Amino acid sequence: MPRLVREDELEDLSRGAAVLGTGGGGNPYIGKLLAQQAIREYGPVSLVTADEVPDDALVVHSAMMGAPTVMLEKLPRGDEIVQAFEMLQAYLGRTVTHTVCGEAGGINSTIPFVVAARMGIPLIDADGMGRAFPELQMVLPTLYGISCTPLAIADEKGNGGILNTISNRWTERFARSITVDMGCSALITSFAMSGTQVRESMALGTLSLAQDLGGCIRIAREKHADPIEAVGRRLSGKVVFRGKVVDVNRRTEAGFAKGSALLDGVDTYVGSSLELNFQNENLVALLDGRVVASVPDLIIVLDSETGEPVTTEEVRYGFRVAVVAAPCEPRWRTPEGLKVVGPRYFGYNFDYVPFVG
Amino acid sequence: MPRLVREDELEDLSRGAAVLGTGGGGNPYIGKLLAQQAIREYGPVSLVTADEVPDDALVVHSAMMGAPTVMLEKLPRGDEIVQAFEMLQAYLGRTVTHTVCGEAGGINSTIPFVVAARMGIPLIDADGMGRAFPELQMVLPTLYGISCTPLAIADEKGNGGILNTISNRWTERFARSITVDMGCSALITSFAMSGTQVRESMALGTLSLAQDLGGCIRIAREKHADPIEAVGRRLSGKVVFRGKVVDVNRRTEAGFAKGSALLDGVDTYVGSSLELNFQNENLVALLDGRVVASVPDLIIVLDSETGEPVTTEEVRYGFRVAVVAAPCEPRWRTPEGLKVVGPRYFGYNFDYVPFVG
Repeated sequence: MPRLVREDELEDLSRGAAVLGTGGGGNPYIGKLLAQQAIREYGPVSLVTADEVPDDALVVHSAMMGAPTVMLEKLPRGDEIVQAFEMLQAYLGRTVTHTVCGEAGGINSTIPFVVAARMGIPLIDADGMGRAFPELQMVLPTLYGISCTPLAIADEKGNGGILNTISNRWTERFARSITVDMGCSALITSFAMSGTQVRESMALGTLSLAQDLGGCIRIAREKHADPIEAVGRRLSGKVVFRGKVVDVNRRTEAGFAKGSALLDGVDTYVGSSLELNFQNENLVALLDGRVVASVPDLIIVLDSETGEPVTTEEVRYGFRVAVVAAPCEPRWRTPEGLKVVGPRYFGYNFDYVPFVG
Repeated sequence: MPRLVREDELEDLSRGAAVLGTGGGGNPYIGKLLAQQAIREYGPVSLVTADEVPDDALVVHSAMMGAPTVMLEKLPRGDEIVQAFEMLQAYLGRTVTHTVCGEAGGINSTIPFVVAARMGIPLIDADGMGRAFPELQMVLPTLYGISCTPLAIADEKGNGGILNTISNRWTERFARSITVDMGCSALITSFAMSGTQVRESMALGTLSLAQDLGGCIRIAREKHADPIEAVGRRLSGKVVFRGKVVDVNRRTEAGFAKGSALLDGVDTYVGSSLELNFQNENLVALLDGRVVASVPDLIIVLDSETGEPVTTEEVRYGFRVAVVAAPCEPRWRTPEGLKVVGPRYFGYNFDYVPFVG
């Protein structure tokens, strides 16, 4: 049975989504505000499980695209995503019945709430990755040959477009260029698919998991327990480092937040250092020069006291953080999955070694 | 009455169009071949005057976009423009009745023949500039507030898109980025307008003028007369330099062919030098450091023996050329026109002085 998500549930949900965002997917505070405002204005959102979606439903992904560094200052107005949604619906010439998250993340798990609230349609408890990744084609539906296009893109000024491409990598390329022109952030609606395709090709239960993770952090804080360990347990992962950020190198390049952060160990990690490389999301963690975790596995940076997820655009000198690694959705670990999101795709010269929690 | 344009007329027409292209607008040899092939396969094209177009006609501009340097090697397959046309027609949800040239030029005056032949619709004897300019918004309809969008863009691989923007400058920006991603050349269909709008906002009779100019060059050659002087007279312009190309600096930048050429004078110009600055089209001619002609007026480079128009991507060391300047379409000389295509728009720090032929 569908359940109604109210404004007050978005605190846990957006925080937990930012944990799954592994550094990317947008700022959870902004994401929470956007969804809360939409629910306040248009009423609670009906959240359905993939099982409840009719086979012939018309489902679209709703997401924000761009450099998270920019999104922090250039907030969405709120109706760009509605513009993108309506453009796509008109282009398809059919009524869209459901929306779903393209990825997990502080903004990308909450933007679909804006769409669902404003369009009065249910939101499906799923996402395309089981985490966040920086590029459009990096979703499980790509492994099933599902086309990203037609994709609708819109900005806050009223500009918009529809793309129709021969592959999801081409969609990424064109949409990224337009996003850069739009000021490094844009709203997109894409991956029109049926209910059957959602069940087959998506990561299911992501929003419930996000809310649960957010709840773990909140409860651990209330009980003066360790929120970091709680997150690690919930994701079958573990803490791989605790330290202080001593250097951050970050640039906005080709529409992404790219760079690295260097951490000096504390507690049992004194004398060690961890290097995090990121492109919107944390891609690789190197402990004293040795890879301890890499894409597609989850590398999660949390404030060492509060367990608050720290996104790659926020991480800065002096932050005391813990780094949790956790296994990814199993389909990413197949040869087909690793072609799309493995370390070599991102230009690293090593083979993926699955992280064991 | 509409007249049928046959394959053999395209020789004069494409050559004359390249004269009006003022260095840009595409290579006339490639343009001629494209149009001839389409006419051979689909039959002659019906050319109508603007007066013959019904008020409520649905007219679209057909054009190639990108760096002419690239177009020389990356030839259009021929059906990209049909794909763009059909995307736009489907998006508009109305049958397009006519097509027209966005600009004059070796390719951009002949690509609309491909559309007209393949879609079986008439081509209007007009263009949007009375010459060629490098950017999308640089058409007379912009001065009349006519929107460039919806614009359809397509490449030879099968990728395509529709843009919908708040201004024609935004269209240029997005379409340019996509064009660069598509490999620096793309085919576009845009500026959907009525017959009334064509009559009001376009430069009329451009294709007839192009054919006439091509004829002047051919006849002058046959009669061993000077084709350069013939071109100058036909355009109420005059020769401003004769010389030898001694230096060319050309780069493909942001989807344009940008650069300059330096000419050493011959005949009565011995001891003088002319510098030509171009961005796809010739923008400014400096005689011994002094501006003799600039945008929006026409600066035309012709082979000094044959009168063959020399495009900016072809000009090279050792070429003996004559440079003809001629007055532009009067609407470009207004304050509104100069804002869009005057020297200051292109970053030059001088006021436009109309060229007197």
